[in-house]
Amino acid sequence: ANPVIVIHGGAWAIPDKLEVASREGVKNAARVGWEVLRKGGTAVDAVMEAVKVLENDPAFDAGRGSVLTHAGEVEMDALIMDGKTLDCGSVATVNNIKNPVVLARKVMEKTPHTLIVGEGANTLAKEENVEGADKEYLVTAAGVEEWETYKKYNVAVSSLFAQRCHDTVGAVALDKGGNLACATSTGGITGKMPGRVGDSPLVGSGGYADNESGAVSTTGHGESITKVCLAHRVVQSLESGGSPSQAASEGLKYMFDRVGGSGGAIVVDREGRFAAEFSTEKMPWAAITLGTMEHGFLPGERNKEPL
Amino acid sequence: ANPVIVIHGGAWAIPDKLEVASREGVKNAARVGWEVLRKGGTAVDAVMEAVKVLENDPAFDAGRGSVLTHAGEVEMDALIMDGKTLDCGSVATVNNIKNPVVLARKVMEKTPHTLIVGEGANTLAKEENVEGADKEYLVTAAGVEEWETYKKYNVAVSSLFAQRCHDTVGAVALDKGGNLACATSTGGITGKMPGRVGDSPLVGSGGYADNESGAVSTTGHGESITKVCLAHRVVQSLESGGSPSQAASEGLKYMFDRVGGSGGAIVVDREGRFAAEFSTEKMPWAAITLGTMEHGFLPGERNKEPL
Repeated sequence: ANPVIVIHGGAWAIPDKLEVASREGVKNAARVGWEVLRKGGTAVDAVMEAVKVLENDPAFDAGRGSVLTHAGEVEMDALIMDGKTLDCGSVATVNNIKNPVVLARKVMEKTPHTLIVGEGANTLAKEENVEGADKEYLVTAAGVEEWETYKKYNVAVSSLFAQRCHDTVGAVALDKGGNLACATSTGGITGKMPGRVGDSPLVGSGGYADNESGAVSTTGHGESITKVCLAHRVVQSLESGGSPSQAASEGLKYMFDRVGGSGGAIVVDREGRFAAEFSTEKMPWAAITLGTMEHGFLPGERNKEPL
Repeated sequence: ANPVIVIHGGAWAIPDKLEVASREGVKNAARVGWEVLRKGGTAVDAVMEAVKVLENDPAFDAGRGSVLTHAGEVEMDALIMDGKTLDCGSVATVNNIKNPVVLARKVMEKTPHTLIVGEGANTLAKEENVEGADKEYLVTAAGVEEWETYKKYNVAVSSLFAQRCHDTVGAVALDKGGNLACATSTGGITGKMPGRVGDSPLVGSGGYADNESGAVSTTGHGESITKVCLAHRVVQSLESGGSPSQAASEGLKYMFDRVGGSGGAIVVDREGRFAAEFSTEKMPWAAITLGTMEHGFLPGERNKEPL
């Protein structure tokens, strides 16, 4: 198979001041994931390395740049899934890990479990020497400012989402061995209740990967995504013969019709066809295959450039 | 619609000494759920009341009777979903709640979120006056004995599951208004890592309910169920026109073929047809509709009696 990597940086009403950083951030992550694939690395390695780049980039709400809960703390969630075996690993509400996607992979590979939350995840991180990070590193000035606005005006979480709120990052990949993988990572929603877990770490909601059909990573209003199992619905559409673009658009339309939420999804199928669809105002995305980068930010925008 | 309630008490190799209690327990829960439906109550009320009966019954691994983690602690998970709105609520790794399904319903109805874990869930329990319970109440002598065996022989979680391990409980219902709901609750697997969340509280894995198709509650090896999004797969089969029995059997076969796990599922569709299928040695189940109780325990066993 011709390798493919697709990245998203979250589907929401991204403010103008973050536009350049968002556009560049997804392109950087795509290049890093592509390098893994080009050198013969696996889809799982590619999505993990790409998501690490996004987690390390403070422009995105994942890893460094995570937003704060109602209590003013960081609680991050991440998921990774290997389409070859359907093995998956997730963590939720972790607060002192540099790259939650790396810890999610440890859950997948080093435990008999699929999701580990809270302190149990921290214990695993210590045992497996996963790099930690303190709150000073993870939280940016913008994150603090957003939280202060939230506390001052007591803005409801739902209205915050509509206006000003960071979101999830994700990656999907196909490697030359024909293996698919997905990874998703997030700091969640500003002002969320402590202990709240959104869609991102949930298999079938925040992502899904199956070598027999395709890989998906979703973004948007987490509770809406969860209610319709968006990622699994999109993969089941691929299984029924839909194209990645159809499967993603129909999944997002179904979500809006049933529960009213907006979001986005990136998809790659087992033949290497890919799509980046969203029903929000903006979603930074980038994809690389056959030596060409494609990327976009606004609805309908699709730029092509050689690598 | 003619109301229907279906109950399961976990799909596993249930030891002989628990047979009578398991058979009676699911029948008791079915009667309580049926009473709610007969009086005109909602499907959500019916599944919650039925699961409370199972949580209060120490024969089942949920609420009182929960098994212990590697660290010797109780960590319970529960899910409830309303097929009318696709609203859902879950809790995971809660340790001092009498009825986790009641707290899951608070997440659904009193918060903008769908899943809350750990201490955040305990905070919500206090705010909403959800009844607490201490470890002495939740853990039975059998639970302690099982944990001591686990510690003594250091039996791997996977082999324990094959031999001797409690499991999930669940309920699905259709009310006379045509609304569907599901609920699932569990204490997990003996010796699980602290923070481990299985399939039970995950929408699409441990359960799913949609008025337009059907309601499902699953049981069995949680990680396998999660990898194939078993509940959502079964509901999507119903959406494509399959019968409850076909949808459940095919879902379980698919899971075994892809990831090797065994389990069970109870299903009711929007027309009131129901099924209780399992690929394990045993699964206690009971169903009531039109004044008749049906129940079973072994493969192919199906007893009918008037209420």
